[in-house]
Amino acid sequence: MDNRPIGVFDSGAGGLTAVRQLQRLMPHESIIYFGDTGRVPYGTRSPEIITQYAKQDIRFLLSKDVKFILAACGTVSSILPATFTQTLPVPYVGVVQAACTAAVAATRNGRIGVIATPATIRSDSYRQQIQSILPDAQVFTKSCPMFVPLVENGYVGADDPITTAIAQEYLEPIRQLEVDTLILGCTHYPLIAHIIGKVMGPGVTLIDAGREAAVRTQQLLEQQGRLAQRESGSTEYYVSDTGESFDAAVQLFVGPHSTEKATQIAIENF
Amino acid sequence: MDNRPIGVFDSGAGGLTAVRQLQRLMPHESIIYFGDTGRVPYGTRSPEIITQYAKQDIRFLLSKDVKFILAACGTVSSILPATFTQTLPVPYVGVVQAACTAAVAATRNGRIGVIATPATIRSDSYRQQIQSILPDAQVFTKSCPMFVPLVENGYVGADDPITTAIAQEYLEPIRQLEVDTLILGCTHYPLIAHIIGKVMGPGVTLIDAGREAAVRTQQLLEQQGRLAQRESGSTEYYVSDTGESFDAAVQLFVGPHSTEKATQIAIENF
Repeated sequence: MDNRPIGVFDSGAGGLTAVRQLQRLMPHESIIYFGDTGRVPYGTRSPEIITQYAKQDIRFLLSKDVKFILAACGTVSSILPATFTQTLPVPYVGVVQAACTAAVAATRNGRIGVIATPATIRSDSYRQQIQSILPDAQVFTKSCPMFVPLVENGYVGADDPITTAIAQEYLEPIRQLEVDTLILGCTHYPLIAHIIGKVMGPGVTLIDAGREAAVRTQQLLEQQGRLAQRESGSTEYYVSDTGESFDAAVQLFVGPHSTEKATQIAIENF
Repeated sequence: MDNRPIGVFDSGAGGLTAVRQLQRLMPHESIIYFGDTGRVPYGTRSPEIITQYAKQDIRFLLSKDVKFILAACGTVSSILPATFTQTLPVPYVGVVQAACTAAVAATRNGRIGVIATPATIRSDSYRQQIQSILPDAQVFTKSCPMFVPLVENGYVGADDPITTAIAQEYLEPIRQLEVDTLILGCTHYPLIAHIIGKVMGPGVTLIDAGREAAVRTQQLLEQQGRLAQRESGSTEYYVSDTGESFDAAVQLFVGPHSTEKATQIAIENF
């Protein structure tokens, strides 16, 4: 038993989809979330800058005495070297590793698609991670740079014509390659999973990376006897720029029950 | 005569549209451009952070011995107080001030529209600036958050159906208000001016803020006898994160003749 909180971080608000999944799976756990809203987005930056930012994010979470760290940011999870994460004083899970494990378990024909931001795709980390588990897997990737602005600006309705048109443009080449499993490699994409699923067709399993990371977190905490024991956990939010639009994102991603306001911190001091 | 360079800065690559206009208007001038690609975008950040970043950007340009500073970033130009810019050792022009002066000169019915990023619109600086010149002007604003990602991802073709659909959604309410002048209050928007113009109709004058800032720069340098005298000027580019995608943006915004590579600097040291 370990009642310390789980630490979650992301470049911005997208990682809140992982928070929602953690809350659903483990209502007894407390969560500390850090969104680096002062330096978002990470996806367009260099690996050196992303690594520097991620280390600061992790030092902040450790200063809050977390028992576990979940990197909800696909870009960080792609770029942060295992040689570093293995030296952390608490267990660490990245969305990339969790999603790849789930995709390999789901595929029947060994043809796996990955959609994500340009930086995540360029890093080639999904392909490497998948093939380290299943060497014969065929991995087809596609960067979808318009999906994040579309989600953030509310083009998420079931039949939204703009998002549907852009999804067809992005996904048709991958669909024709007959993948049977598609990793949503960016925390924003689950909010348009219904549109992505319609374009890909019923035979394709969608893997929500945030959800798989939450499931993997639960497994590891269980194995180590570190699940919390209390009536119900709480969630605290921290950001690196003013939190007004972040508070709105909490409502969108986590749900209307989440009324906690985010606290601003100076991440460059960590 | 003053052969020192003109300094131009923006949060990223969008301000390159002002560079193109400066080069066209004044081929004898040299230009130093700084794009804060390590901290882009500014538009979603707090006024305090934006002011801090802008001051660092200006200190960097002054360290390059510029004779003039053009703030090509609509967000900075909206937020930076005149009490600060008036204390600078060289003349300063912001895109907002230049665009408003041009819009007031162009309007016949006193009804002016402004489209820009959400932060620029929220700052209300276009309205305040227009009404400080023409107190009876009626100003109608609309934030267009999808335009920047659409431009950056190449949805700029003459008949692009996605950009046309989103432009109709954004612009129809402003068109119905019978504005006769529309300020493109973001440096990215001139690249889809053809689509914006088609939606607004032939009776509406579009004001390109970057172009007006370049024109105003020329006027001020002429008045002060500070135009350069040489065969032809050069342009140097500086960025705060790796410059690969920036170099591609130079080709897109300034033109294929621009083969100079960007140099990375540590802006946090200024």
